[in-house]
Amino acid sequence: MHNPPEHFSIPEPATATGAMKKTFVKGTLFPVEVGMQRLDLSKTYRCGDHEFSSFPMYDTGGPFSDPSFRVDPEKGIPPVRDSWPFPERVTEPPVLNASQGKLSSRTPRKTKEGFGITQMHFARKGIVTPEMEYVAIRENQQLETWTAAFSKGGRPAIPFSAEFVRKEIADGRAIIPANINHPELEPMIIGRKFRVKINANIGNSALGSCIEEEVDKAVWACRWGADTVMDLSTGKDIHRTREWILRNSPVPIGTVPIYQALEKAGGQAEKLSWELYRDTLVEQAEQGVDYFTIHAGILLRHLPAADRRLTGIVSRGGSIMAKWCRANKEENFLYTHFDEICRILQDYDIAVSLGDALRPGSIADANDEAQFGELKVLGELTKAAWAHDVQVMIEGPGHVPLDMVAENMQKQLELCHEAPFYTLGPLVTDIAAGRDHINSAIGGALIASMGCSMLCYVTPKEHLGLPDRNDVREGIISHKIAAHAADLAKGNPAAWLHDELMSRARFDFAWEDQFNLSLDSERNRQVHGESLASAGHSNKNPDFCTMCGPDFCSMKKSREVQEMGGTEDGKSGNG
Amino acid sequence: MHNPPEHFSIPEPATATGAMKKTFVKGTLFPVEVGMQRLDLSKTYRCGDHEFSSFPMYDTGGPFSDPSFRVDPEKGIPPVRDSWPFPERVTEPPVLNASQGKLSSRTPRKTKEGFGITQMHFARKGIVTPEMEYVAIRENQQLETWTAAFSKGGRPAIPFSAEFVRKEIADGRAIIPANINHPELEPMIIGRKFRVKINANIGNSALGSCIEEEVDKAVWACRWGADTVMDLSTGKDIHRTREWILRNSPVPIGTVPIYQALEKAGGQAEKLSWELYRDTLVEQAEQGVDYFTIHAGILLRHLPAADRRLTGIVSRGGSIMAKWCRANKEENFLYTHFDEICRILQDYDIAVSLGDALRPGSIADANDEAQFGELKVLGELTKAAWAHDVQVMIEGPGHVPLDMVAENMQKQLELCHEAPFYTLGPLVTDIAAGRDHINSAIGGALIASMGCSMLCYVTPKEHLGLPDRNDVREGIISHKIAAHAADLAKGNPAAWLHDELMSRARFDFAWEDQFNLSLDSERNRQVHGESLASAGHSNKNPDFCTMCGPDFCSMKKSREVQEMGGTEDGKSGNG
Repeated sequence: MHNPPEHFSIPEPATATGAMKKTFVKGTLFPVEVGMQRLDLSKTYRCGDHEFSSFPMYDTGGPFSDPSFRVDPEKGIPPVRDSWPFPERVTEPPVLNASQGKLSSRTPRKTKEGFGITQMHFARKGIVTPEMEYVAIRENQQLETWTAAFSKGGRPAIPFSAEFVRKEIADGRAIIPANINHPELEPMIIGRKFRVKINANIGNSALGSCIEEEVDKAVWACRWGADTVMDLSTGKDIHRTREWILRNSPVPIGTVPIYQALEKAGGQAEKLSWELYRDTLVEQAEQGVDYFTIHAGILLRHLPAADRRLTGIVSRGGSIMAKWCRANKEENFLYTHFDEICRILQDYDIAVSLGDALRPGSIADANDEAQFGELKVLGELTKAAWAHDVQVMIEGPGHVPLDMVAENMQKQLELCHEAPFYTLGPLVTDIAAGRDHINSAIGGALIASMGCSMLCYVTPKEHLGLPDRNDVREGIISHKIAAHAADLAKGNPAAWLHDELMSRARFDFAWEDQFNLSLDSERNRQVHGESLASAGHSNKNPDFCTMCGPDFCSMKKSREVQEMGGTEDGKSGNG
Repeated sequence: MHNPPEHFSIPEPATATGAMKKTFVKGTLFPVEVGMQRLDLSKTYRCGDHEFSSFPMYDTGGPFSDPSFRVDPEKGIPPVRDSWPFPERVTEPPVLNASQGKLSSRTPRKTKEGFGITQMHFARKGIVTPEMEYVAIRENQQLETWTAAFSKGGRPAIPFSAEFVRKEIADGRAIIPANINHPELEPMIIGRKFRVKINANIGNSALGSCIEEEVDKAVWACRWGADTVMDLSTGKDIHRTREWILRNSPVPIGTVPIYQALEKAGGQAEKLSWELYRDTLVEQAEQGVDYFTIHAGILLRHLPAADRRLTGIVSRGGSIMAKWCRANKEENFLYTHFDEICRILQDYDIAVSLGDALRPGSIADANDEAQFGELKVLGELTKAAWAHDVQVMIEGPGHVPLDMVAENMQKQLELCHEAPFYTLGPLVTDIAAGRDHINSAIGGALIASMGCSMLCYVTPKEHLGLPDRNDVREGIISHKIAAHAADLAKGNPAAWLHDELMSRARFDFAWEDQFNLSLDSERNRQVHGESLASAGHSNKNPDFCTMCGPDFCSMKKSREVQEMGGTEDGKSGNG
């Protein structure tokens, strides 16, 4: 970790209003402390049988949302997992360079020969790990009232016990991507019975951006709510960029190792080899990457169907492997060496995200034989990975018209044995460039409401250029809307309570609570303030907004109507 | 039309690149000329059995998308409908103030006693009107190849003949809102077998904006793609604002007349009266408003259920009527006088948009007894309006979680006899303030794919303040994405062809075609150019973008893979 990024911008404290407080919830089985944001509300709201004067917010910001934390990118964030009981079956404990507090001289950990240490390994043995307890507490959001579902319509409420988490992982329905070499990680879970997650892609290309910018984007991505971050760098300094990102990341980091392998092969896909790729895997595994996208499902026999498509192969990794296969007239080495790959992943507890090399790149190519042909292979590879206790998720499309989204989810569950689904959108039209984050949020919300576990964000720059920090923000917020909408549809009681508090704050004209409960409080506070100011109002807490003004505010009038009372239907007026 | 707006900004010509040409398609039954934007493509694309070197775009811009038109807000846009054969049963032909070319001294038209002139009247008599032929041509988008559906999955393709349009209107499944006093109108159709439409709300409030700004927003709304515009002004100068908007609007204008009536009642809901309201209706009818939102379905017996809600009544018109009912202990006068209302609407061929006074204002209130109780009454009122040959659409929610959206559509079709549904979103969560245009696009896309005919946009300012021109743009584009996604899901062949051309342009790196085929070409051209420039590239038409750079462009690689050829599955490589 030499040459620290120079222009690393430190995120401002999250608590502009002082209403948001970083709190830590202690585990009962392990010495874990789960960070959350406790929002102190301006008043007490009654929801069902409970009263709330504060609300615990799920928090992806790690130390960056803790105002007492002094950000020092050179030092990296604290290795929280080092204080937890760690499997004794790994080769080396971490060695800190005590004089500087740097992690630069850490010796990478690796599982001892003949042992298993993956979350799936322990789960299948019936053993609960600190990571499992951590995510159970995190998903419960400290809601003691969890079992009393706030959602309507008979949606079931499941309290997330550590044992429940263990069972989901044992059965392959959920994963905790947590490389033993990423001690800075605050574990999170990906699975359709849990909160829907979102991933933010960052990474430079040959045409733009430097390390500083990418680290900066990664840190801000966590602050804005990204649950995982993929570093898709392809330009120079791939290794260093990744090191900086990992040492400063409280969320799981994913990569597509074939990108770095291609750089090592001088950018010539046909020159790639298994050995080159294997060494790249180990290099990244030792750095602490938590999940790898591996395009092992695209086979020679799929290529003619891809040739017949309107937009061919739009996955970068997929097009690289297709070129290698055809140039060398050989089967995809990621497929032929998949068992060896799994043995590497197993040693570090790296999850595999089986890449959809043949995802449709246009509406016309959706749900075609190339796509579903590959999905079937991904299902076979899922079982192969599980045989090594390697955690698996499946990547999905892409471009899909709305009426064909459901088939994707159904086929994935069926062919891939309920392994978590992780989709890029889907985009529901091809003509939304410049606003593809909205396009993707539409398809993403729908597929997540049907069971997709994680949405890969798409930014407004998709199809046009490399996203900057503001694009990252727009991409994250739009997909958090989609994920949250899906949580509501699936009946997550914390999500329902969140919305109920917001609506009560809205009906009470409690503006600060409204800002703090929304997905982008800074933006809202600013927009509302500007609207009032431009209308010449100095009172920042009026019982109306500039949209309707005081005389036409329906909520204000509606309260007056309520206060007039009435039992015109013969029933009690307030129940 | 005295005191013209001073700061009226004239939209720049639409044809920045010269690739977009305003064209007019002549009718065969009537002397109508339907305006479209013909996009000249940079190359010829083969789609199915057809070749396309140009593509006719559905165009809502009217004269504003015609570079040869000189915008003069004081004069208003040309009264195109005056040159069409007009029903002889109206009292007065329009009188132009010849000396100035102004429309200020027009005598309002009205139907002669005892005659019927609504589109529904003619449709039921089996008569095709110029308006019907106009929309049939417009919906067909000049695609001779219409019957050859481009969509996959066996979706049916319906060519929109004038006779087909007539039948849909006769059966109440579609409406053409076209007041006989709005001769500037270019007719459009709202119905679930046609293109999904979007409405843009504009209008000042007591706290902001002036006439100039609102007219400016209206004109730009048409340019960006709004199919109808609702003037929801509530501040001063309501009449004048509306007059300016109407005389400059090629799209149908909707209003909520109770807003002006309330201003006349000094802002005191309890002082409203039927007479005051009736006179307001006539005043607006004579100006040329094409559809009225009328909250006639909220009844005294619904109010206790609304009291029990989390957020009460969030419709402005609904809260006004609820207050009136409870203050006067009388039934909603819009309901008790509904037949008289219909007789007024009938005289001018104004469509009624039955307002959903009890739409849910929060996720917790979705699909409740208040909402569906009112919907049932709206169904009864639909039949009452149809008895007067008045065209009807039904307004819908609001705030609805994703899994409860379908029930809204099903119940609306069933209870309201397939009258077109016109929804505000729905928003699928309560916590997205600042990005509610995305929130609404998610719910809107879903319900439109299920049969909703028109989406009322929501802007990023929703819940926070009065939208400015940029908010209008964001609101429109996000909902055009939703509407188009629904058109694809429903199998509209023009929509499929549009996406196919875009994808072919993308695979061919035909950047100008990509920009022109997208929903916001100016934005895309700008973003792509800036990305390349910041990366130091001067070639504006490279075969890659800055997102991946040249070495990692999957489309580029995919083409190389295709060129290498292969028949690994034993079938032909290019079919």
